[in-house]
Amino acid sequence: MKKLNIGIVGYKFMGRAHSNAWKKAPQFFDMPAMPVLKAACGRHESAVKDFADKWGWEETETDWKKLVARPDIDIIDVALPQDLHYNVALAAAKEGKHIFCEKPLSMNSRQAEEMLKVCEDNKVKHYLNHNYRRTPAVSFAKKMIEDGKIGRIFHWRCAYQQDWIIDPNFPLTWQLQKEYAQAGPQWDLNSHAVDLAHYLVGDIASVSSLTANFITTRPIVEGGGTTGNLTAGEVGTEMGDVTVEDAALMMVMFKNGAIGSFEATRFAAGRKNRLSFEIYGSKGSLCFDLERMNELQYFSREDESGQQGFRTILATEAAHPYAGNWWPAGHIIGYEHSFVHAVVDFVNAIEYDTQIKPDFSDGLKIIKVLEAGLESAASKRQIDL
Amino acid sequence: MKKLNIGIVGYKFMGRAHSNAWKKAPQFFDMPAMPVLKAACGRHESAVKDFADKWGWEETETDWKKLVARPDIDIIDVALPQDLHYNVALAAAKEGKHIFCEKPLSMNSRQAEEMLKVCEDNKVKHYLNHNYRRTPAVSFAKKMIEDGKIGRIFHWRCAYQQDWIIDPNFPLTWQLQKEYAQAGPQWDLNSHAVDLAHYLVGDIASVSSLTANFITTRPIVEGGGTTGNLTAGEVGTEMGDVTVEDAALMMVMFKNGAIGSFEATRFAAGRKNRLSFEIYGSKGSLCFDLERMNELQYFSREDESGQQGFRTILATEAAHPYAGNWWPAGHIIGYEHSFVHAVVDFVNAIEYDTQIKPDFSDGLKIIKVLEAGLESAASKRQIDL
Amino acid sequence: MKKLNIGIVGYKFMGRAHSNAWKKAPQFFDMPAMPVLKAACGRHESAVKDFADKWGWEETETDWKKLVARPDIDIIDVALPQDLHYNVALAAAKEGKHIFCEKPLSMNSRQAEEMLKVCEDNKVKHYLNHNYRRTPAVSFAKKMIEDGKIGRIFHWRCAYQQDWIIDPNFPLTWQLQKEYAQAGPQWDLNSHAVDLAHYLVGDIASVSSLTANFITTRPIVEGGGTTGNLTAGEVGTEMGDVTVEDAALMMVMFKNGAIGSFEATRFAAGRKNRLSFEIYGSKGSLCFDLERMNELQYFSREDESGQQGFRTILATEAAHPYAGNWWPAGHIIGYEHSFVHAVVDFVNAIEYDTQIKPDFSDGLKIIKVLEAGLESAASKRQIDL
Amino acid sequence: MKKLNIGIVGYKFMGRAHSNAWKKAPQFFDMPAMPVLKAACGRHESAVKDFADKWGWEETETDWKKLVARPDIDIIDVALPQDLHYNVALAAAKEGKHIFCEKPLSMNSRQAEEMLKVCEDNKVKHYLNHNYRRTPAVSFAKKMIEDGKIGRIFHWRCAYQQDWIIDPNFPLTWQLQKEYAQAGPQWDLNSHAVDLAHYLVGDIASVSSLTANFITTRPIVEGGGTTGNLTAGEVGTEMGDVTVEDAALMMVMFKNGAIGSFEATRFAAGRKNRLSFEIYGSKGSLCFDLERMNELQYFSREDESGQQGFRTILATEAAHPYAGNWWPAGHIIGYEHSFVHAVVDFVNAIEYDTQIKPDFSDGLKIIKVLEAGLESAASKRQIDL
Repeated sequence: MKKLNIGIVGYKFMGRAHSNAWKKAPQFFDMPAMPVLKAACGRHESAVKDFADKWGWEETETDWKKLVARPDIDIIDVALPQDLHYNVALAAAKEGKHIFCEKPLSMNSRQAEEMLKVCEDNKVKHYLNHNYRRTPAVSFAKKMIEDGKIGRIFHWRCAYQQDWIIDPNFPLTWQLQKEYAQAGPQWDLNSHAVDLAHYLVGDIASVSSLTANFITTRPIVEGGGTTGNLTAGEVGTEMGDVTVEDAALMMVMFKNGAIGSFEATRFAAGRKNRLSFEIYGSKGSLCFDLERMNELQYFSREDESGQQGFRTILATEAAHPYAGNWWPAGHIIGYEHSFVHAVVDFVNAIEYDTQIKPDFSDGLKIIKVLEAGLESAASKRQIDL
Repeated sequence: MKKLNIGIVGYKFMGRAHSNAWKKAPQFFDMPAMPVLKAACGRHESAVKDFADKWGWEETETDWKKLVARPDIDIIDVALPQDLHYNVALAAAKEGKHIFCEKPLSMNSRQAEEMLKVCEDNKVKHYLNHNYRRTPAVSFAKKMIEDGKIGRIFHWRCAYQQDWIIDPNFPLTWQLQKEYAQAGPQWDLNSHAVDLAHYLVGDIASVSSLTANFITTRPIVEGGGTTGNLTAGEVGTEMGDVTVEDAALMMVMFKNGAIGSFEATRFAAGRKNRLSFEIYGSKGSLCFDLERMNELQYFSREDESGQQGFRTILATEAAHPYAGNWWPAGHIIGYEHSFVHAVVDFVNAIEYDTQIKPDFSDGLKIIKVLEAGLESAASKRQIDL
Repeated sequence: MKKLNIGIVGYKFMGRAHSNAWKKAPQFFDMPAMPVLKAACGRHESAVKDFADKWGWEETETDWKKLVARPDIDIIDVALPQDLHYNVALAAAKEGKHIFCEKPLSMNSRQAEEMLKVCEDNKVKHYLNHNYRRTPAVSFAKKMIEDGKIGRIFHWRCAYQQDWIIDPNFPLTWQLQKEYAQAGPQWDLNSHAVDLAHYLVGDIASVSSLTANFITTRPIVEGGGTTGNLTAGEVGTEMGDVTVEDAALMMVMFKNGAIGSFEATRFAAGRKNRLSFEIYGSKGSLCFDLERMNELQYFSREDESGQQGFRTILATEAAHPYAGNWWPAGHIIGYEHSFVHAVVDFVNAIEYDTQIKPDFSDGLKIIKVLEAGLESAASKRQIDL
Repeated sequence: MKKLNIGIVGYKFMGRAHSNAWKKAPQFFDMPAMPVLKAACGRHESAVKDFADKWGWEETETDWKKLVARPDIDIIDVALPQDLHYNVALAAAKEGKHIFCEKPLSMNSRQAEEMLKVCEDNKVKHYLNHNYRRTPAVSFAKKMIEDGKIGRIFHWRCAYQQDWIIDPNFPLTWQLQKEYAQAGPQWDLNSHAVDLAHYLVGDIASVSSLTANFITTRPIVEGGGTTGNLTAGEVGTEMGDVTVEDAALMMVMFKNGAIGSFEATRFAAGRKNRLSFEIYGSKGSLCFDLERMNELQYFSREDESGQQGFRTILATEAAHPYAGNWWPAGHIIGYEHSFVHAVVDFVNAIEYDTQIKPDFSDGLKIIKVLEAGLESAASKRQIDL
């Protein structure tokens, strides 16, 4: 079987999730080419070697420029924070590598436009990993909308809620600093939410937004800090400014006349990773909650009178996209499975030379909405796109 | 026992709900005075007589001006659409009658201001019936917030969703005409939602809003039409313009720094009367859904590690306001019970000369927020209050 | 309009619930005769007078024999504990009174048989108040089964769970003494559950049962004690034996080949009044939970592939039995409303001389199942009915 | 790092699930030895080779006797239907191999006793894969019970419901034939349920059972047939007898005085793989549903008055067993993750020479309960263990 050599940049949370996906994909799906975990790259040599050992990456690099220049690499997997996407993706595209890129795409729309253009100029596949599209429940929601089950859409109502920084002593990690993260939940969480809105409802015409900061200073972390692997010693007593928003709300008008709302926050006590949406249309409704990601709520106005109600579809059947490749009906899948679906579709797109979505053009569109949101919050007026 | 004579104006949906409340209150609650259903008033004599017979109103009137002038009446119960509140309430107050008034308070803030002033000048009790405050679950939520269980509030997220006008052939009832209703769900539904936000979170400092019309013309109804009692013959083939919004979104900043969102619509398929809110604070969270009005969701960050989660409190115990007066724990109550609680508290306020909330000052504050919302939707900018 | 004079015996929990029902019925339903709250009867004169005042009973009696003999009484409402049903019902039937009787019907099947026979001999209407049949959700479930939506029924799975006697210091009220209650949850709770099984599934052919006592002695109450209105002073330090079971399980075979299970307990922490059932058939399934009594869960195997799931039907629409007489869709009703439905149907049965179910023949059938359960628990073998 | 060579027998559903577990375990958990996928065994050479290729098994065998005799194999993984466990496990133990065995343990208690004895005599580790114990939610439930959070347990209520054979045309696969399966859901599903009951509540003292057959004949499958990989051509028109039960109910008394119920069926429309249990104790309650396997419901009688309710614990936090090794809080895991936890614990048990549970002694205890159930169903009387 044909092989596709992958080079990954980044070995933290997303490095693990991507590695797992590359490994599992051919075990559960028929693929036209075999992904090969060729080389993993990170600045800290011993850490990246440990990572490569654990996940079966054949080689390691410490300089991403060397990695992207290697002629034996077919795919560059960008598993890095958003401030580093631009340089790596640009170089990879210029070397003719296909790009599997973590979200959010970039720090701003100028970067995104250039990333898209260089990919197109170099005719490489470019995939942006808004992975929640590829849960069976969300993919099936898309199918139902396309099949006309929901009719004309009136409403999109969405919240992406987490609670990991409610404690005022939670330190000033990179996610809370504009120079690394560009924005707070508007970037990190609403990028996912806007991607789903684009996918399921359509393009957005105008945006109003409101942002808030609840905790303005936090303890500084030695070395910049990242989520999830802080040790006690790293956090000092010195305080620094939080330079991104803690929460971001948006109201939007879609081009098709639907209206929508978004709410993204890291201050919703009890919500760990709750991305929920409600879609209301002329024929029916669909609701989803990522914390119960195997389920899709569906209401049909076409059910018999008296028998109408929201159905909980357990999206684990052969009729649900991707689900039939895993386990029998009723056996649920988890968070990381959506990454497997993404790499399967990405490999198919490369081998059959088809388009995969979302790509950098979608990412650019998302970033423009997010930027319009920040502009609206600052100017206190509605922004047309 | 002392008696309080009530005169009611209006005998449709709210006339029934109020009559039921006046009748049941003394059977389930100890009251300092006995409400007497003295006289019911409506324009159509035979209809109002049927109503009075069914509910035990002793007498009937067909002219509300006569009713409010009767010296034997202590309380005027205004169970009318909002366009008629102003005149009736003003006259009643000037006659020294206590006023139990349906929501929304008025057609605009100018009316509301005058209604409040005349009530205060005449030293009558004025109660505005945002009855959902008085469900045991919501009252208990208020108590928990006051007891500090939620801590500093960061987020208010609220939707009031119905679906009764999705069908484009649903006729042009009074609720869809500005001259009778002033606005659509912004007035009808968001008035309730804003009342709960004021009650549970605090005053609002600024508003941004977005409204939409999904169906712009509808069949005209002979005689104006009202919900729920249309007969086929009343609806013709002639079309008229819908002159209120079909849906209204708001984003707000509260004076205490919390941020909030509101969504009100009559186009959410499958939601019949779903008023839901989520409150997130530094110590915990509370969620409520009117379609499961006996339940309150509570998350405490102070529960033991690993054991934290949203609790479903079934608010039917003696510890929950009002609940102990009904049935044993686990035996739920329904929609109309909140009206009973309101009349009990209203009679107490009269007899003990205490304040009852929400009153017309609260109503004025609500109307100002709703007006600011409409202004924001029109001007596409944030409005400060 | 024709009037029907009611005499009620009992003025505690059920006295309130029945009085409320008689009062509300004509306000919400069209009825062929007007129920008149003629006389209330109880042993304690001042208590029964207070009760009559509160609820509008015109007169009082302290001797039930006098009440049932009064020629002006049409209906005897038996709102008493089960040990007193037999004597009152027998006397009432012999006087030609129609009987509205609380559940469980009697202390044993011998009493039940006689009660049924005397009613039939005297041609009086006899209604047994298993009121949960008459919630809109359960009534609609019955309709769906009759309409063939569920197909052949395979499974009935039911639990009636409460938690009010978990505390070992909860006193020895009458419900815990065989001489007053005959049995524990097997009588009190499983009578409701078996009624629903008979109604929705069919007759039972055989029973196996298991019972348990978790707390064997409890503090004695002065004067016998009843739930819900104990005062501290009534409970002493002397202990007495609990002489009924604390929990009762049953497995049954239905005559139609379905199998079923029942679980009744007062020791299920957190379950206040949770009567839940699951029905599984060849075409679909139905589930119900009394703590969410406005909802019915429905799964249809005939929904399109991939779109199947349990629907939450909010049984508040005109299509749902009784619901249209209350409030608009989405406005829920409470526990006591099922009593209103019962008195409406009872009055209809009297006026139109039709049968009302469940009646004493149903009650006899229930008692036989419950007795078979106790016999099975004692003999450790399956009992055929 | 030390290596442990595994030989697996079986390559269908469980072969995949086990292979996946062996692969993923060292990527997510620190392990004292590295599992090596040394050899996969199956009767059909080309099929087993495909399987080995897909999953990375280094070699293949077609004779399990050769496999278990290989000196380079440390662990025999028995991923076969239950009729084949006895022979393979016995031979493996005699060769001194550690055994990782699928459930249910065996066809009867005689086999189970011998399997246990031979393992003990040969001092090999023997693990029985009742994997649901090792979901974070169930493991945490166990911890809470051990920590005294639930107090004295009164009730165990459990159902394991599926719906895959409701269609009468579903063919006569091996699971429906006594010679291959020994019993129906009593063996397949109740073995899991009884394992959880033993784990969480304790040993069972007596059993009553009821079984049913709803469909007695089904189309015969060429070659015996297995679930999930039937092709149309394999099912003919000839009918054969279903020789196992379609549903099995049990009521049990535990040695500690708790009582319990079990319901296992393949005829519960809409339930795909719903293993649910409820545990009620003197201090609180716990509920679980495998279709929402990341959640645990917990009610505490020690929460403040009025604030009590069932909490939905999302068992994805570091405080929950195993969960911290996967993803951040709120990112759920799926069905197969419990297998990973099992192999991690199994390798630990081997390397640190500790006991792993459940083992064959637990399996024997389970089989005895299941046999008592079948005996009770046949004899219609309670069976003491």
